[in-house]
Amino acid sequence: MAGIVPSRRVRGTPFSAGVQAAGAKAYTVYNHMLLPSYFESYKADYLHLKNYVQVWDVSVERQVSVKGPDAAKLMRIISPRDMNKMAKDQCYYMPICDDNGGMLNDPVAIKLAEDHYWLSIADGDLLQFLLGLAIGSNFEVEISEPDVSPLAIQGPKAEELTARVLGDSVRDIKFFRYKKLQFLDTQFVVARSGWSKQGGFEIYVDGTEYGMPLWEAFFEAGKDLNVRAGCPNLIERIEGGLLSFGSDMTRQNTPVEAGLAKFCNSPDDYLGKATIEKQKRDGPDRIVCPISISGDDDLPDNDTGWKVLFKNNQVGLIASAAWSPDFQTNVAIGMIERDHWDAGTVLNVDTGADIRSAEVQEKFWI
Amino acid sequence: MAGIVPSRRVRGTPFSAGVQAAGAKAYTVYNHMLLPSYFESYKADYLHLKNYVQVWDVSVERQVSVKGPDAAKLMRIISPRDMNKMAKDQCYYMPICDDNGGMLNDPVAIKLAEDHYWLSIADGDLLQFLLGLAIGSNFEVEISEPDVSPLAIQGPKAEELTARVLGDSVRDIKFFRYKKLQFLDTQFVVARSGWSKQGGFEIYVDGTEYGMPLWEAFFEAGKDLNVRAGCPNLIERIEGGLLSFGSDMTRQNTPVEAGLAKFCNSPDDYLGKATIEKQKRDGPDRIVCPISISGDDDLPDNDTGWKVLFKNNQVGLIASAAWSPDFQTNVAIGMIERDHWDAGTVLNVDTGADIRSAEVQEKFWI
Repeated sequence: MAGIVPSRRVRGTPFSAGVQAAGAKAYTVYNHMLLPSYFESYKADYLHLKNYVQVWDVSVERQVSVKGPDAAKLMRIISPRDMNKMAKDQCYYMPICDDNGGMLNDPVAIKLAEDHYWLSIADGDLLQFLLGLAIGSNFEVEISEPDVSPLAIQGPKAEELTARVLGDSVRDIKFFRYKKLQFLDTQFVVARSGWSKQGGFEIYVDGTEYGMPLWEAFFEAGKDLNVRAGCPNLIERIEGGLLSFGSDMTRQNTPVEAGLAKFCNSPDDYLGKATIEKQKRDGPDRIVCPISISGDDDLPDNDTGWKVLFKNNQVGLIASAAWSPDFQTNVAIGMIERDHWDAGTVLNVDTGADIRSAEVQEKFWI
Repeated sequence: MAGIVPSRRVRGTPFSAGVQAAGAKAYTVYNHMLLPSYFESYKADYLHLKNYVQVWDVSVERQVSVKGPDAAKLMRIISPRDMNKMAKDQCYYMPICDDNGGMLNDPVAIKLAEDHYWLSIADGDLLQFLLGLAIGSNFEVEISEPDVSPLAIQGPKAEELTARVLGDSVRDIKFFRYKKLQFLDTQFVVARSGWSKQGGFEIYVDGTEYGMPLWEAFFEAGKDLNVRAGCPNLIERIEGGLLSFGSDMTRQNTPVEAGLAKFCNSPDDYLGKATIEKQKRDGPDRIVCPISISGDDDLPDNDTGWKVLFKNNQVGLIASAAWSPDFQTNVAIGMIERDHWDAGTVLNVDTGADIRSAEVQEKFWI
């Protein structure tokens, strides 16, 4: 594995001291910041995540702040989701598209006020799109990146641990809703959300100076819960069908192809609507599928996407795959063409190192 | 140094096989792709670059293609440089700003036709800004990322080597001009440019399939020239005052602060013009300076920028610094406040590990 050189352009986070002390062994770069890939190993981290509780530095989920008199108007233009239905304390997972329906990002939007939203973004400078759109449209709105760095608490003991640090009212937060909760002399947005299927919270840490005090508070409070530093886990997120923008889908795909049609219900004239509505009506040409791949825990690296083949013709692409200890198969996410996407279809996958058989699954593993 | 995990989201390039075989020891991530940081060491690479010739995989300089009836109109809005003066075969280094003059990127623009430009971008998804701006402005223009990956040939023997592979007409290409030259059954844009001060060319390799054949042609032709794989070199580019967007300047800075006022001469009403013209008239509050830092070849990593201090008050930031074997000092690029930017001013730098004295220089080292 190649080493990565630190620089201001690929920077650390408010929690980097904690992450380094906890022994992160490998990283990726996401929104110009370091994101740990694993601490002990994918497998050891996975087993721990499913049984205990982890503290994740997900500062890389940068916020794009949309604030001003035209904020709601801009949100209606970019949101395939019906903004009329968004409650005051709600978080909306939201694919964002160009005018042809090509995906540009899939953030979680948080409504802070009628004229103020945060978009917690996937990898890619969505700020630049919103800024360009606002300038081109002459909208009165400020587009900026605040000093906000999410910390995720994930795992079956996440509620217990978060309640110890931020109070019992976290227990009342519903899925994809948030409360503003006190920490030291400030308040943070705390949402029941996170990029795992094990449950937990994301704390939008507003102010770098609060990063390490909060990190340490969680480790101090969680000793008897076997708390550990962790990070989004490749195996667990594939089992759960959690998509990675840039890997599992790109601007070449629509939200319908990414299996996100249910998040496209806005009555407004949002960007990409014509394509998305047509695909919802007629069906897309390809769609994200759960795939199992033959073999043991011996998959090579996948840095370009593996071709999925039917009789030597490419009928899909797999960008995410890993050995699942719980399901004893290689779990994968693939974008598969219409004629081959039925559950039970057997295909081949060219991993670069070998050709393996693969089978389209009925559903993700969790 | 932490390891980096490969994925489709942080992908390889058309030349990755060559880069790996040549033994890249460390990488950074730039525009969602891997960019080598050094092969043997910063110092060994530097000494070789200044004496021989290197082949650089700079695929990370992704192209944003701006094409269509409104392409020139869009370029005039984003360009601080006078587009009327741009010749047909010219490459324009161009800071691009938001409406307040905050820098968003500093690409090299290439004019392919009156209605077609490529912007060879620094780190950051400038495509998203242009796309948002085009959509918001209702411009008839297609914004896309073509399958184009630059390969740079740099060093004192670059002209000789490039002529051997692409023909003697490369010798007639002027600085920041280009020609279209034949390779196998296709043609590439070949410009006299590159992110070093040692001279050379950038070849805009159009089509992934031509990547390794071209790479191999250069190594085959350059054996007696001591050709090696290389990459932008931290030491050499600091000596030469070549700025890294995201490190040496960000959206918090204007082009005038970045020392790029001479590239802001457009008579058109471009984005950020009011701020830029005011700063050109009155002087900016801070500006990029060459700085020497005391000590030997013992600088710590710099992943956040080092504070520059005067009597314990912060008066600047240094994001790029390295030991220079040729000049026997630590060379650095800093953004320094007005009251402290005169050449000869002595300041302190907090590297995180220690406090060192530093001196503002009259000019960069080359």
